[in-house]
Amino acid sequence: MRLHDIQYPSDLKRLRIDELQPIADELRDYIIDTLATHPGHLASSLGTVELAVALHYVFNTPDDKLIWDVGHQAYAHKILTGRREAFHTIRTYGGISGFPKRSESPYDAFGTGHSSTSVSAALGMATASMLQGDTARCHIAVIGDGALSGGEAFEALNNAGDSKANLLVILNDNGISIDKAVGGMNSYLTRITSSRRYNKLKEQVWRRLDGSDGGRRHDRSLNVFQRLTSTAKTVAVGGSNLFESLGIRYFGPIDGHDIRQLVDMLQRLKELEGPKLLHIVTTKGKGLRQAEQNPVVYHAPGRFDIRTGEQIPSADDGRPLKYQEVFGRTIIELAEQNPSIVGITPAMATGCSLNLMMERMPDRVFDVGIAEQHAVTFAAGLAAGGMVPFCNIYSSFAQRAYDQIIHDVALQRLHVVMCLDRAGLVGDDGPTHHGLFDLAALRPVPNLTICAPIDEHDLRNMMFTAQMPDRGAWVIRYPRGLSEHVEWQSPFEELPVGRGRCLRQGGGDLAFVTLGTVGNDALRVAGELDAAVYDMRFLKPLDTMMLDKIAAAGYRRIVTVEDGVRAGGFGEAVMEYFAARHPAVVAQVRILAIPDEFVTHGPVAQLKHDCHIDADAIRAAAN
Amino acid sequence: MRLHDIQYPSDLKRLRIDELQPIADELRDYIIDTLATHPGHLASSLGTVELAVALHYVFNTPDDKLIWDVGHQAYAHKILTGRREAFHTIRTYGGISGFPKRSESPYDAFGTGHSSTSVSAALGMATASMLQGDTARCHIAVIGDGALSGGEAFEALNNAGDSKANLLVILNDNGISIDKAVGGMNSYLTRITSSRRYNKLKEQVWRRLDGSDGGRRHDRSLNVFQRLTSTAKTVAVGGSNLFESLGIRYFGPIDGHDIRQLVDMLQRLKELEGPKLLHIVTTKGKGLRQAEQNPVVYHAPGRFDIRTGEQIPSADDGRPLKYQEVFGRTIIELAEQNPSIVGITPAMATGCSLNLMMERMPDRVFDVGIAEQHAVTFAAGLAAGGMVPFCNIYSSFAQRAYDQIIHDVALQRLHVVMCLDRAGLVGDDGPTHHGLFDLAALRPVPNLTICAPIDEHDLRNMMFTAQMPDRGAWVIRYPRGLSEHVEWQSPFEELPVGRGRCLRQGGGDLAFVTLGTVGNDALRVAGELDAAVYDMRFLKPLDTMMLDKIAAAGYRRIVTVEDGVRAGGFGEAVMEYFAARHPAVVAQVRILAIPDEFVTHGPVAQLKHDCHIDADAIRAAAN
Repeated sequence: MRLHDIQYPSDLKRLRIDELQPIADELRDYIIDTLATHPGHLASSLGTVELAVALHYVFNTPDDKLIWDVGHQAYAHKILTGRREAFHTIRTYGGISGFPKRSESPYDAFGTGHSSTSVSAALGMATASMLQGDTARCHIAVIGDGALSGGEAFEALNNAGDSKANLLVILNDNGISIDKAVGGMNSYLTRITSSRRYNKLKEQVWRRLDGSDGGRRHDRSLNVFQRLTSTAKTVAVGGSNLFESLGIRYFGPIDGHDIRQLVDMLQRLKELEGPKLLHIVTTKGKGLRQAEQNPVVYHAPGRFDIRTGEQIPSADDGRPLKYQEVFGRTIIELAEQNPSIVGITPAMATGCSLNLMMERMPDRVFDVGIAEQHAVTFAAGLAAGGMVPFCNIYSSFAQRAYDQIIHDVALQRLHVVMCLDRAGLVGDDGPTHHGLFDLAALRPVPNLTICAPIDEHDLRNMMFTAQMPDRGAWVIRYPRGLSEHVEWQSPFEELPVGRGRCLRQGGGDLAFVTLGTVGNDALRVAGELDAAVYDMRFLKPLDTMMLDKIAAAGYRRIVTVEDGVRAGGFGEAVMEYFAARHPAVVAQVRILAIPDEFVTHGPVAQLKHDCHIDADAIRAAAN
Repeated sequence: MRLHDIQYPSDLKRLRIDELQPIADELRDYIIDTLATHPGHLASSLGTVELAVALHYVFNTPDDKLIWDVGHQAYAHKILTGRREAFHTIRTYGGISGFPKRSESPYDAFGTGHSSTSVSAALGMATASMLQGDTARCHIAVIGDGALSGGEAFEALNNAGDSKANLLVILNDNGISIDKAVGGMNSYLTRITSSRRYNKLKEQVWRRLDGSDGGRRHDRSLNVFQRLTSTAKTVAVGGSNLFESLGIRYFGPIDGHDIRQLVDMLQRLKELEGPKLLHIVTTKGKGLRQAEQNPVVYHAPGRFDIRTGEQIPSADDGRPLKYQEVFGRTIIELAEQNPSIVGITPAMATGCSLNLMMERMPDRVFDVGIAEQHAVTFAAGLAAGGMVPFCNIYSSFAQRAYDQIIHDVALQRLHVVMCLDRAGLVGDDGPTHHGLFDLAALRPVPNLTICAPIDEHDLRNMMFTAQMPDRGAWVIRYPRGLSEHVEWQSPFEELPVGRGRCLRQGGGDLAFVTLGTVGNDALRVAGELDAAVYDMRFLKPLDTMMLDKIAAAGYRRIVTVEDGVRAGGFGEAVMEYFAARHPAVVAQVRILAIPDEFVTHGPVAQLKHDCHIDADAIRAAAN
């Protein structure tokens, strides 16, 4: 049987165990071949091929519930569960999602995208089964060692340790999240897996069990294995296991690319009641040399050459820098001038380009792990200690730190500069990753200054202004993707806080009032229609003097544009001010913003079109 | 020297070590005497009297940084740091805060109120000191075992394990958060502290060290202590220490009421570099028999008799139930009819009255620990498994789960009923605890139904309606305190989703449009002014048909009232709809809502007055 005979896990189950590795090999090639021309999350998914095969071979999915934490490692799972043919459409508009998605397949037991939720969700499902008297159903959370640093995963493990639910946590340990994994927990896992004495002993134990009887093993031998490996760990790592401290039975570590061992172990664990954790060790990027050697770059490498594995550089001669790169280079410039500046990232150093500063000033950048809550309070602590922290978090991940922004930063008026990268529509990653709620969620928070640059010069000036003495709590949000100009390194200029600017006077009775990079679309349309363009720069404080002028100018039509949710957002803030002070103008205002629904994945231009915030929509609203 | 001679820690430092316990005793009496008539958080603060004395005796506060997690155990700290005279004003309007507050005292190194932030903040400050080349300054986080279940604390410990910062975490282990502490971590701590073999060995070690030289001890003896106790733990608890797994040196457990031992240990730890944790065991409510025996009730007992310790019941004959009690009794009624209903609380079973259901149906209520993020995703998992979870979280704590509400509940359209207790102004607990952001933050989230009852009958009907089949994701927010009617147990009635109702027709040209219990204030004023009152019930979906009618009715003045932030809230939603559909009406609208600043602590009536959302403000806005 070949991969193309496998539509569903039921097909897989007809195979003998020694037929599984060839399927896994083919699956790996299929992923590499497809992603070479259809970019996606490569390295993570290559690391979990054997695991996906083994899980669907052993467990009775979709009745047994399988949850992939974060979910960008679930490509093999998707291919094995009815989506092989559709796989080349992954992350494309109208195609399948890059993450597990309940509405896409019954095999996707829980939607993921953000990290560290899988144990909570699996424990919830396992508890539901328990309450419903279903003792046979299994509930499996596959979580990476990086995702394990997220506090929610700990909350869930802590709760699971108290529970009798039928929960299996598979710790997929590859020492990498997107960047290299960090933190005490990671060092601990490394100590376990790298201890020679321990591994030797474990191997002996394993071989003995493996040799004892060829077929199905007794629970007793599993218990022996656990006891022996536990003793081995006590000797080698200097004590019992962190997970067992929490009340969760621990097994492993085992080789996550050894299908036979995986299947064997999963079959045993399937019979075991209560919460348990299997620690498997995998290689991120397994099977593609370049990806194994450089899993950070090959996390999502874009297009690459199938034969050589080399990335195909996009034609970027003379293209502008990405916004993230402008951030990453600018913070170095500022930090060279201002010794108080430090950088903080929750495990996104490469994604937000803080890796540049890390290379240059390693003592002044902190990768705190996947830990957005801690990142923000840690920044608040640094600010209370007299530093000026730039805390860079992707907009949608900053939702994790909403309370900390309110409670630890804004309430205490601490000088923290929150830089929200990936704000607005992010494209291929879809609804879990769009940064659409930041403006509306943060606008009501007192003491915050909130701004959005129209281009990279503005971003640089906002960063420059935000780090000046006693500026309090700032939020600067900017999008994914390329900036506007090739010449990015403009001289720094202090911006007047809470002041917008008129970018184009216009000759007619039409005005566009914008926040952030959507102003560039408005500018283009304004040229055609001879409209005025006001770039407000700051959502908070809002430039009410400028709004007074706009109201007084007698425009026939005033169009606000933003790339965030409409409810409570920028347009509504403008409307609310007009309603209170210039009610006569209200009828002239049209708000262009993201409507009240989650936005799918696809090219940003397409999504902007669908959400009616692109140039066409601006043109249409002008009438 | 007596307590009244101690204004600041410098006074304390002049005492001999044997003079400290009498001061602690006096301090404890002073807290009991004061709180007997000025209600506050009693039991937690009684448990930390010796610790507060020892910390200020040993460390050089405020230059050394001391952070009290949550902070309601910091009363002794407040009294010892310049606030003895003001202590009777605690939690009163214009008086000192019930929590540490940076603006109140330089000794309050970091403001707290919400749980599990202290280690992050202390690590931030310790990192700042390290960057500034200050190796002498100490940074101390005092965190309870309950607060340790919050994921942010784990994120911080995980990060600290990687750091060389001068951080001392004091784990104040009393087995209680507000209710009894839960979770695997708690069981683990109990195993450590209750192991007889371990404790005996530790005591021997301690005595040997203690006897070795009377004065200052060497670091070497501390290391011996750590090594020996660590061995003892390995033997007794079956392995090394969870905290040491994360890279944090662990010391303890020691008796947190033995001042001499505390001082001695802290003096040793002060000399030790890097991150370390001291585990102390305390008795919540120490020194007041009733509070020791019943720390849940005496967490914040209200007034009590100083001599007997008995609570003084407030004159509640014939008073209505609290909203939380109506929730707690109603969910039992519903759960008796609907076997799918389960209850979830993150460590607030008594505070939200889910303890009632816990007694009746222990298998169907889950106290998941202080873990709001997990609580919501766990609920989502239960819903995905076919249950109907009611997840009850205080409004301001739900800020912790903002991402989970978006990503795990709303995006997946799961049938979770989020009940946000303590919404609106909460009174004495002040700015960290007011539930003012919920409406504005959740309104932009697609797929949510959001409602707020005007009274307990409405609350019951909203709960009844929300649990009906396929209702998707609901948010019901209701306030702290007493409900409206003595007869609370009205028959259930299905409410039309997204429909408001006219409570009073009114004879004039004035209309009040309200959401939630502020509608009762509007009703009272409406009687005087013969105004119409529209109770909108639902923020989302908003009853636009009713707004159309209101717009068409030709009112001279339309006043919206809510007890949430103005920006992005209910009034703005109404205004935005009018602006889009009925611009002519806009000039008539006045929005009453919480202005753009954090609100202090004090009686709710006073705060409503200050925020201009009380009856006076409604009356004034009518003109």
